[in-house]
Amino acid sequence: MKLLRYGEEGSEKPGLLDAEGMIRDLSAHVADLGGKGLEPASLAALSKLDIKTLPVVSGNPRLGACVADVGKFICIGLNYSDHAAETGAQVPSEPIIFMKANSAIVGPDDDVLIPRGSEKTDWEVELGVVIGKTAKYVTEADALDYVAGYCVSHDVSERAFQTERKGQWTKGKSCDTFGPIGPWLVTKDEVADPQNLKMWLKVNGQTMQDGSTKTMVFGVANLVSYLSQFMSLHPGDVISTGTPPGVGMGMKPPRYLKAGDVVELGIEGLGSQKQTFKADA
Amino acid sequence: MKLLRYGEEGSEKPGLLDAEGMIRDLSAHVADLGGKGLEPASLAALSKLDIKTLPVVSGNPRLGACVADVGKFICIGLNYSDHAAETGAQVPSEPIIFMKANSAIVGPDDDVLIPRGSEKTDWEVELGVVIGKTAKYVTEADALDYVAGYCVSHDVSERAFQTERKGQWTKGKSCDTFGPIGPWLVTKDEVADPQNLKMWLKVNGQTMQDGSTKTMVFGVANLVSYLSQFMSLHPGDVISTGTPPGVGMGMKPPRYLKAGDVVELGIEGLGSQKQTFKADA
Repeated sequence: MKLLRYGEEGSEKPGLLDAEGMIRDLSAHVADLGGKGLEPASLAALSKLDIKTLPVVSGNPRLGACVADVGKFICIGLNYSDHAAETGAQVPSEPIIFMKANSAIVGPDDDVLIPRGSEKTDWEVELGVVIGKTAKYVTEADALDYVAGYCVSHDVSERAFQTERKGQWTKGKSCDTFGPIGPWLVTKDEVADPQNLKMWLKVNGQTMQDGSTKTMVFGVANLVSYLSQFMSLHPGDVISTGTPPGVGMGMKPPRYLKAGDVVELGIEGLGSQKQTFKADA
Repeated sequence: MKLLRYGEEGSEKPGLLDAEGMIRDLSAHVADLGGKGLEPASLAALSKLDIKTLPVVSGNPRLGACVADVGKFICIGLNYSDHAAETGAQVPSEPIIFMKANSAIVGPDDDVLIPRGSEKTDWEVELGVVIGKTAKYVTEADALDYVAGYCVSHDVSERAFQTERKGQWTKGKSCDTFGPIGPWLVTKDEVADPQNLKMWLKVNGQTMQDGSTKTMVFGVANLVSYLSQFMSLHPGDVISTGTPPGVGMGMKPPRYLKAGDVVELGIEGLGSQKQTFKADA
């Protein structure tokens, strides 16, 4: 299933995309697509619905973040060998974990706000992994059992805040609107191999990132298992698994986003996002 | 007011501590002590209640985390000059921000679990600041307007996970049960000066930390303003503002917690916590 949330910010309803590309309303069948709504029993019940009988949503509503009430928004740093190289960093010997504020999460096509004082706002297309079952001390072999599905995640990053303002990366990763996720939460049954998905990102129509989840250093199962050694993962947690080469920081000279820039990004089978960048008020 | 949450984990009810030390039930007046329940209108309404008319809670119930549904659990690193010195770090020129997983949050007297593989679980008594109103780009002069109140926060930390396992600190800060907060959320009207509160921590009865919020490098108003330049703070977000000297990592030789150790900690006017440390199953 391609699950989604549609409607105005703060009052989104759950829906799904049917085979014809129409949005069908799921409000009568699940309260929202977060927490318990993503657990195996909930997804199994949704998968049994006769999609043709679900109400069609008319018009062209805004899409919200594809997961509601994200508990933890965990990111993996330098998880593509070529990206580590372009930033001048070593490939890490074990996953680098940091957190993005869940208050940064927005819909896939919402405007992204360049924060006051920012001169180094950068892009990062990433595979998002959505947890569907509480995971603690799980093995790599079992790890995918705890995954509900996948989505496109844009890990927007302010490089000066991240690396020049002392200490940890959170500062440059957590700004409001810096976390578009969606358009869809694609359930894992529709993703044959999460380690073989093409991914791309364009700025004003020019391709900047053109990679594949094939070149991840630590794959999805490894990451879920690894993270679960340090903390429980809960339904509705999202893991953004790192970005392939082609970020602005890695260009010579570096190139950063300015107001008016349009960024489009997508992952094979998971849909695409399109954001206009604007100066924060 | 000394607001609290009582009852079994996951089904806590809101309450307050009256002048005689009895718990009074607030269920009829606020859904829970998180998000909207902490906004100025909600707290103003609670402050007008005639406490004597509220039902007394009998027995000696477990206390839960004093804030429900914490959105962001933001921590400040190395924010006491003497603590920076004991860890061998420089006093930072601006606040160091990192995130603790909100899934680490537990009640003030709950057991703390030493994670599998941990050999360096350490203690940190900290002043917790609870946000009551959305703050974005606020000035230091206005910052305390956005604070609902204060609490004791125990920033339990696994030093090997934090500093020897590559990358960011999140790994050593986010383990399940590593975030006891409470016993109470003390509303700010009862805290004359957040920068003049004695704080202490004992391990098995021996005083290890004996400090004061006086020696914070960056004070509460500064931190709220600073953080709000990078991300919106929302009602129910908690900021743990750093620890004074006396952590286990700073001892010669270092001393870490083991199963059976009992840690007690408190802050003047904000109550105290007591945890037994146990090996995680």
